[in-house]
Amino acid sequence: MRMNRNGLARAIAQGQGSEKADLVLRNGTVFDLVTGALIPSDVAITGDRVTGTLGRYDGVQEIDCAGKVIVPGFIDTHLHIESSLVTPFEFDRCALPHGVTTAICDPHEIANVLGAEGIRYFLACAERTVMDIRVKLSSCVPATHLETSGAELNASDLAALRNHPKVLGLAEFMNFPGVLAGDPGCLDKLAMFQDQHIDGHAPLLRGMALNGYLSAAIRTDHEITTADEAMEKLAKGVHVLIREGSVSKDLHALIPIITERNSPSIALCTDDRNPLDIAEEGHLDFMIRTAVAEGAEPLAIYRAASISAARAFGLPDRGLVAPGWRADLVILDDLNSCAVSQVISGGRMVVPEVFRKRSIVPPVGFGSVKAPRVTAAMLARDDAGKTVPVIGVTPGKIITAHLERTLPAKGVIKVAVIERHGKNGNIGVGYVEGFGLTSGAIASTVGHDSHNICVVGASDADMAAAANHLSEIGGGFAVVRDGKVLSDLPLPIAGLMSDKSFEEVREKLIPLRAAAKSLGCTLPEPFLQVAFLPLPVIPHLKISDRGMVDVDRFCLIE
Amino acid sequence: MRMNRNGLARAIAQGQGSEKADLVLRNGTVFDLVTGALIPSDVAITGDRVTGTLGRYDGVQEIDCAGKVIVPGFIDTHLHIESSLVTPFEFDRCALPHGVTTAICDPHEIANVLGAEGIRYFLACAERTVMDIRVKLSSCVPATHLETSGAELNASDLAALRNHPKVLGLAEFMNFPGVLAGDPGCLDKLAMFQDQHIDGHAPLLRGMALNGYLSAAIRTDHEITTADEAMEKLAKGVHVLIREGSVSKDLHALIPIITERNSPSIALCTDDRNPLDIAEEGHLDFMIRTAVAEGAEPLAIYRAASISAARAFGLPDRGLVAPGWRADLVILDDLNSCAVSQVISGGRMVVPEVFRKRSIVPPVGFGSVKAPRVTAAMLARDDAGKTVPVIGVTPGKIITAHLERTLPAKGVIKVAVIERHGKNGNIGVGYVEGFGLTSGAIASTVGHDSHNICVVGASDADMAAAANHLSEIGGGFAVVRDGKVLSDLPLPIAGLMSDKSFEEVREKLIPLRAAAKSLGCTLPEPFLQVAFLPLPVIPHLKISDRGMVDVDRFCLIE
Repeated sequence: MRMNRNGLARAIAQGQGSEKADLVLRNGTVFDLVTGALIPSDVAITGDRVTGTLGRYDGVQEIDCAGKVIVPGFIDTHLHIESSLVTPFEFDRCALPHGVTTAICDPHEIANVLGAEGIRYFLACAERTVMDIRVKLSSCVPATHLETSGAELNASDLAALRNHPKVLGLAEFMNFPGVLAGDPGCLDKLAMFQDQHIDGHAPLLRGMALNGYLSAAIRTDHEITTADEAMEKLAKGVHVLIREGSVSKDLHALIPIITERNSPSIALCTDDRNPLDIAEEGHLDFMIRTAVAEGAEPLAIYRAASISAARAFGLPDRGLVAPGWRADLVILDDLNSCAVSQVISGGRMVVPEVFRKRSIVPPVGFGSVKAPRVTAAMLARDDAGKTVPVIGVTPGKIITAHLERTLPAKGVIKVAVIERHGKNGNIGVGYVEGFGLTSGAIASTVGHDSHNICVVGASDADMAAAANHLSEIGGGFAVVRDGKVLSDLPLPIAGLMSDKSFEEVREKLIPLRAAAKSLGCTLPEPFLQVAFLPLPVIPHLKISDRGMVDVDRFCLIE
Repeated sequence: MRMNRNGLARAIAQGQGSEKADLVLRNGTVFDLVTGALIPSDVAITGDRVTGTLGRYDGVQEIDCAGKVIVPGFIDTHLHIESSLVTPFEFDRCALPHGVTTAICDPHEIANVLGAEGIRYFLACAERTVMDIRVKLSSCVPATHLETSGAELNASDLAALRNHPKVLGLAEFMNFPGVLAGDPGCLDKLAMFQDQHIDGHAPLLRGMALNGYLSAAIRTDHEITTADEAMEKLAKGVHVLIREGSVSKDLHALIPIITERNSPSIALCTDDRNPLDIAEEGHLDFMIRTAVAEGAEPLAIYRAASISAARAFGLPDRGLVAPGWRADLVILDDLNSCAVSQVISGGRMVVPEVFRKRSIVPPVGFGSVKAPRVTAAMLARDDAGKTVPVIGVTPGKIITAHLERTLPAKGVIKVAVIERHGKNGNIGVGYVEGFGLTSGAIASTVGHDSHNICVVGASDADMAAAANHLSEIGGGFAVVRDGKVLSDLPLPIAGLMSDKSFEEVREKLIPLRAAAKSLGCTLPEPFLQVAFLPLPVIPHLKISDRGMVDVDRFCLIE
C-alpha cells in the first residue's frame, strides 16, 4: 500500500472528518475480527484505504449498508489460477465478486509448460488485475525426476524473479522426498529463500520426517486431510491452509480445528477450483458458509479468511476493517451464510466498469501441444491374466490407493500419459479403477504437474482418438466414443487455459460433464480427477509419461 | 534467519534424527502457543534454529530440562536502550538473561543529541550483540518545534538508513498534532514508510482524531493507559503494546484486555527501564509474572511476549518453539512465575562466554554537553503573589497535570531547562509540584526528548550548581545541596549513557536515589521523572528550554 504526501494529507483529513470521505459505507455493522464484536458504524474510505470506523461520516459517494455486515476481503492463500481454466484477468472477474480480494497464486502449471515465460506472464497480469494477485515462485519445475516436463526452473532462474514487487516467496515445496534426501537442487532453492516466505506441501508427512522437512523454514501446508494431522502440524508451527477445491475437499474433515484459539494459525485456500464450481457453489464465500453451517465459530473462520492469512504471508496492510488498512471489504447480507452483497477492492467498488478499465496483457503459450500421433496399437498391452498395479481413485480426493488387480477386473480401465512438449514422445500406460467408464475415453492436456496428455478409457482406439484430437485443437479436454468427439473444451493457452470468457468456459463444461457421464463415468469432477492422475508428489500410486509411479517409494514401477 | 546449503542439509538431517543435533534440550515441556498445550518433548537445535520438537533426540550437547518449561524468547517491542543508561552491549548482557531475545529499539534519545551519527552507532552495535536488536528509525527529531534539540532528521536523512538490514521501519510517530495538522515534514516521513512498519504514539487520542492519525498507516501504540482506551484502539486495528517501564507503568490498568481473544493484537514493551529495576524486578519476565499474578491467562501473555509481537513487526522467523523457527528460547523453572532458568539466543546458550566473544563498537558522543554556565540570578523569578501554571507530577506516570497555583504554594518548586547543544543557551524556567523536595536540587542531562539539562530544586543556587556540575562531567545525573554534590552518575556518551558496566551503573543509582530522598523527594524514581518533565508530546503541561508548554494546545505559554 503506497500513498504520496498529498494522498496522506487527504486520508488524514477525511479520517478526522474535516473533509468529506471519498466513499462512505453508511449505517452498516462492522465485524471486528480482533475483539469479535459486531459494531454499528459507518466506514469511511479515502483512495485505497479505510480512514474511518466507529463514527459518523459523510462521503462524496455513499452506499447504504443498513442491515449489512462489513468484513475484510478474503485471501485465497494458495491456488493455481490455471485450474480455473481461464486467464488471470478472467479469474479476477470471476472470483472477486465472491469477496476474494487477494489471491496468492503459484503459476506452477504454466511454468511446467513454458518455464519463466509463463511466470512473467502471470506477473504482468498481476500488475493489472483489480484484485491483488500475488505470485509465489514455483519451486518444483519439474515436480520430480519421474516425468518429462516442458521446462526446468533452477535456483538461478528463480533468483531473477524474486525481487519483483508481486512476488511473495517460494511456492509449495512439493518435492518433500528431495528435501528429506538433501537433494542439492532443492537445497539451493530453499537456501535462496530463507529470508522470504516458503510454502509447504507435505501430504501425510508426520513425526520426525515432518520435522526434517520443516527445518528448512517451510511455513505452511495445504495438503492436510485429517484433524489429527492438522493438530500435529499446528503444534509444529505450520500455518494450516485449509483447502476446498474442485477435487480435493478437506474442509469437512478440518472443521474441528477451526477454533478461536487456533485461528491465528489457520487460513483458507482453494488450490484448484473450476469456474463451474465457482458459479454453482462460490469460492472462499462457499468455504465460509459451509464451515459456519458445520459448526465453526464465525470469528475463527472469518479470521482465517483474512487477518490470519495476511499475517502469515507478510501482507501487513490488510485483513481488518480499520483506519489505515487497505480498503478490501466485503459487504454481506448475512454473516453466517456469507451472502456477498458488494465487494470493495483497494477502495474501488467492484462493478463491471472497473474490469473494463484494465489493460489486458496478451496471453502466451499458443501452440504448446507437440505430442506424437497416437494409435491404438501404441496403447495396447498383453496383460490378461497378470496381476498389475492399479490406481484406485476416490471421488473428491487426489490421494489415490495403490491397488493390485488380476486382469481383466471389473471397473479397471486403462490410463495413458503422452509426453506433449516435443521432447521425447514418451507414452506411459497403466490401469485405474474408480472412474466407472464402460465405453469411450476422456483426455486432458491438463495433467499435473508436467501437463502431458492424460487419457483414461475403456477403448484403446478411443483413447488414441481423444489424445489426437487434443493435439489438433492445441490442448484442452475431450470426450470421445466410437471415434467421435462427443464434447470438448479448447484450452489453447499452454494447453491449460481458455482464451475465452469464464462464462463461455462455464457453459462448455456442462455438456462436457454430461458427455463423460454418458460413458458411464461416476465421478462428479471427471476432468480434474484425470488431471491429477499424473501427479507423482501425491500418494500413493500415480502415472507419468515414463510409466506407473510408486509415490511412497518415489520411483517408477518397472 | 539465513542458512546456506550445507547448513540446511545439516538442519534437515538433524531434524529427521538421522544425525545428532547440535544441541538438545532433553525431557522438558514445550508450551505450545498455538494450541495452548503443554507438551512433554525434547527440543533439537541445529545452528540458529529449532529442528525438532514432539520427539526424542540425541545431541552433541544436551541440557537436562526435566521439570522445566520451554517457551519462545521474549520480544521487547518498543524501548529506548538509552534509558537503561548503558550501551547496547551492556543492555544485551543485562536484559538477555531475563529472556529478552529480541529488542526493537528506537534510538531516539541519541538521535536527538547526535543525529544520524547516533543511529549509525546503534546499528553497528545491533550487528554485534548476542540478542537480536532491531532498530526503528526515529521519526520525530526534534520531537516538536517547541524545543531546541541537538540535531534534526528529515525524510531524506531517514531514507539513507531505511534499507539497513537491522532497520524495521519508522519509530513512534509522537508528533500526533503534526500528523493531524498535515505538517509537510511529517507527511514526507510517513509517505516514505508506507511500505514499512510505522509505530504510533498517541496518548489519550480517541475518536475521529485517532482515526485521522491511524489513516497514515500507523500500526501500534504503547501510550495506552486505560482498558477502555485499549479496547477502542484494538477495534481500530492498533496493535496494543502494553508498557511497563521504570516511570510509566500501564500493565496493571491493562490486565483486563489481556485475553486469549485479544492476544494476537497485543505485545509487550518497556519503553524506558533503568538497570536497577531490571536487577530488582526483572524485564519482560517481570511483566509476564505480574500479569499472571493479576489474573491474565498464561497463553495470552506468553503469546503477547513472543508470537504476537513477531507477527506484528514482520519477524516471521520467531515466536514459536517449532522446527524451522529461530532458536530463541527461554527455559523456565516455572511457567506462572516466569522464573528464567536458562536462555538460548539464536541457538547459542546465553553464558558469560558468549558476551565476551562480541567485538565491541567504540562509543560515540563524548563532549556533547555545551551548556552556558548558569548562575542563581539567571533562574530567579519575581512571581510572589502571582498565579502561575504548575506541572503536576504523579508517581509512575509521565502524563502530568496542568495546575494553577498562587505563589508561594506548598510543595511547588522551580524547574529549569537549559539548552546544552551549543546552539542558543536558552533557559526555560517554570514550576512543578509533586517531587516533595524541601532543599537542594536534582539535575539531569537526560531530558526527553531534546536532552537539554533539566533541573528541579528548592534553591536557585543549588539548581545552578547542579547544572554546572553536569557540564563539567560531560553529562549525567547529580544531586546537590548547599552547593555540594551529594551524589552523581556520569553519563558521558551523548550525556545519556555510561561507558561503564551495567553493574557499576546499578551500584551508583542506589546512593543517587538515597541522596534525592535526603532532599525530601517522595518519588520512587526521581531521575526518570525529572527526565520526562521536558517531553512536550505527553499531556498536559511540560517545560522546554523555550519555556512552559501547554501540550493540549501544543504551544508555549507566554
